[in-house]
Amino acid sequence: MNIILLSGGSGKRLWPLSNDIRSKQFIKIFKNKNGTYESMLQRIYNQIRKIDNNATITIATSNMQVNQIRNQLNNSVGISIEPERRDTFPAIVLATVYLNEIMKVDKNETVVVCPVDPYVDDDYFIALKELNNLASVSDSNLVLMGIKPTYPSEKFGYIIPSTNSTVSKVKEFKEKPNKEVAEEYIKNNALWNGGVFAYKIDYLLKKAHELIEFNSYQDLYEKYHTIGKISFDYAVVEKEPKIDVMRFNGSWEDLGTWKALTEKLEDNIIGNARLSETCQNVNVINELDIPVVCVGLKNSIVSLSLDGLLISNKEETDSIKKYLEDIGNEPRYIEYEWGNEKTISNNKNSRIVKLSINKGKEMVYYRQNEFNDSLIVLSGIGQVLNDVDQEIHPSDIIKINVDNVKIKAIDNLELLLVRTKKKE
Amino acid sequence: MNIILLSGGSGKRLWPLSNDIRSKQFIKIFKNKNGTYESMLQRIYNQIRKIDNNATITIATSNMQVNQIRNQLNNSVGISIEPERRDTFPAIVLATVYLNEIMKVDKNETVVVCPVDPYVDDDYFIALKELNNLASVSDSNLVLMGIKPTYPSEKFGYIIPSTNSTVSKVKEFKEKPNKEVAEEYIKNNALWNGGVFAYKIDYLLKKAHELIEFNSYQDLYEKYHTIGKISFDYAVVEKEPKIDVMRFNGSWEDLGTWKALTEKLEDNIIGNARLSETCQNVNVINELDIPVVCVGLKNSIVSLSLDGLLISNKEETDSIKKYLEDIGNEPRYIEYEWGNEKTISNNKNSRIVKLSINKGKEMVYYRQNEFNDSLIVLSGIGQVLNDVDQEIHPSDIIKINVDNVKIKAIDNLELLLVRTKKKE
Repeated sequence: MNIILLSGGSGKRLWPLSNDIRSKQFIKIFKNKNGTYESMLQRIYNQIRKIDNNATITIATSNMQVNQIRNQLNNSVGISIEPERRDTFPAIVLATVYLNEIMKVDKNETVVVCPVDPYVDDDYFIALKELNNLASVSDSNLVLMGIKPTYPSEKFGYIIPSTNSTVSKVKEFKEKPNKEVAEEYIKNNALWNGGVFAYKIDYLLKKAHELIEFNSYQDLYEKYHTIGKISFDYAVVEKEPKIDVMRFNGSWEDLGTWKALTEKLEDNIIGNARLSETCQNVNVINELDIPVVCVGLKNSIVSLSLDGLLISNKEETDSIKKYLEDIGNEPRYIEYEWGNEKTISNNKNSRIVKLSINKGKEMVYYRQNEFNDSLIVLSGIGQVLNDVDQEIHPSDIIKINVDNVKIKAIDNLELLLVRTKKKE
Repeated sequence: MNIILLSGGSGKRLWPLSNDIRSKQFIKIFKNKNGTYESMLQRIYNQIRKIDNNATITIATSNMQVNQIRNQLNNSVGISIEPERRDTFPAIVLATVYLNEIMKVDKNETVVVCPVDPYVDDDYFIALKELNNLASVSDSNLVLMGIKPTYPSEKFGYIIPSTNSTVSKVKEFKEKPNKEVAEEYIKNNALWNGGVFAYKIDYLLKKAHELIEFNSYQDLYEKYHTIGKISFDYAVVEKEPKIDVMRFNGSWEDLGTWKALTEKLEDNIIGNARLSETCQNVNVINELDIPVVCVGLKNSIVSLSLDGLLISNKEETDSIKKYLEDIGNEPRYIEYEWGNEKTISNNKNSRIVKLSINKGKEMVYYRQNEFNDSLIVLSGIGQVLNDVDQEIHPSDIIKINVDNVKIKAIDNLELLLVRTKKKE
């Protein structure tokens, strides 16, 4: 099976754990069977591998997420990098061309496209396989997954199927309705459109060439910024007459708010925290190394990270964005392919950052001309790879004599960057 | 007027702002007329100076608080340092001998003793002056302040006066009662014993020599650890027949819980925080540089410091201590005479500490043989005072070649201490 996972959506709906760089799919809060925590991305990746160990997985994403994906999944997936965000049609075209041209997948094969961040069980992935098979054998050009609604949501578009059978022609698409209209739709067997569908690569390449002039992946990549911003639904789905929908009855949830997310957490405390026996329905996620104590708190989530502290009543978590507008957000936790950086102090005079480089990985430090930087080894063993290789150990101070310095972690390596302003 | 302020009580009742070193009287949360925040200690000091600018103020305290007192009040007060905690009688004797012998106050003068941490208005200090005058002219050996109760408290001892007049003989002392008994006392005009009293220095020296054998301040100081732990009430007050009580009708509060404390705060937000319009009766005190966002929170206090985060329903703040028992508390914020230190990261491999040295002050750094320490200048200008004086500027790394290094702040100076483990 070939799968394209659409990984988008930076934002602050799960602030202070999500920020302009860290999207919700990268937050490690789902306990796996080893007792450690994994992210939504890692969870969905492991679920796919369980159902189809040979699946070709391609993640369609922006440049900003590449490091985080490599950090969390290493080199087990292909990544189709959008040079900039241009809505879902260009993104899916780019990923499909990537699959065909770079990953060498034959154009007669099929591909399943789905978002990276629904919270689903194994039956969802079995359904993806069925969707894939249908796309392969059906006369239709597109096969959509229609998710059986569990409530009259105003957040999804609806698909009206022609019949009640598991697979049917699509009668009509409906835009996001209000609650009353949604209730009507559901009475008439309407299904949610969760943006999950399958097609033959060949079909999509034809559609792509109808709308965009390009002759190779490289060519498409280079002119990407000139392509119109248009959604896949609008450009393809709603105009396609030969289209089927497959009904999916399993659970499918979009954990887009703190309330929805915390309902899925196995532990009500993640990190260092304690709750009084008078606390009720409280979730604490503490990424810092200081203790959290809650006394007599009810129906609330508490989330503490390097970026800030949120305390919210669970019934109001979908309104947090409006309190974050002018919060001035330079993310303090950033994942890279080689490890991560944590800004532990930042003010007008200085900035202090911990850099963790994973064993065997390399990081390149670029000298900043506006600042005086010192790098001090806190723990581990590393090597500075310049003209002459030099081994580094705790308390060593790395001299920055050249424009960039390559540092390799022989064992997990922790450095402290101390940045001060240059004299004027 | 001579005043001895008893400054005691480290503890966690106001955790995470109070800790084993920082007592509640040192927390800067009371807004003064300049719009900056002052501590209980600074507030009471300024109130005394307003009523009597020439008062001789002596603070009786432990070694642990000396730096914080010097940091907050400079050299404007005398400090009688108890070599160790031995209850109030030895502490008051030591401070009185200090006043007589070191501060050269004549033994015919009077002294007023009171705790450093009641929350009071100016009328309290006018009453202290009256108490002082009474001690000077009265035939009684001790004049107590009796505070008119505002509720049947179980936390105070009670004084039963002989008459209803403002100044009267003491009929009887009562231990801390339960609520019903307290109500009875109050019906009979009983007063709270707030530990506020005045006496002639001469009188107390006689009492001291009756119970302790010593011949000078130095002698008393050296044998302090051998003196029995005994309270002033038990050793002196309850045995003294010639004793008066002066009624005080003004407001007098012990801000010993977060709930009581927050009722006196002018601003419901101190530090970087924002509250949704759905929040009600919420106080936030944020000492960190990251933002706090509260949404839909009610009747709660939120307190965030380097030591931890507390979120507590206001009705339960007197129970927080039991959740802190095994919290492992190495205080991360410590005030010194020269400035302060803030531990911004601490784990098994390394410790990172910001040292702020106030302009003109000197700090001595002592080399630790178990660790490799580096000191980096973050901001300001200083001088390393070794064999040869050496000026230091941002990004300079201070070499530790000797056992101790004296560093002087020419302008406010901020250093980063980076401590790593030595190779084994």
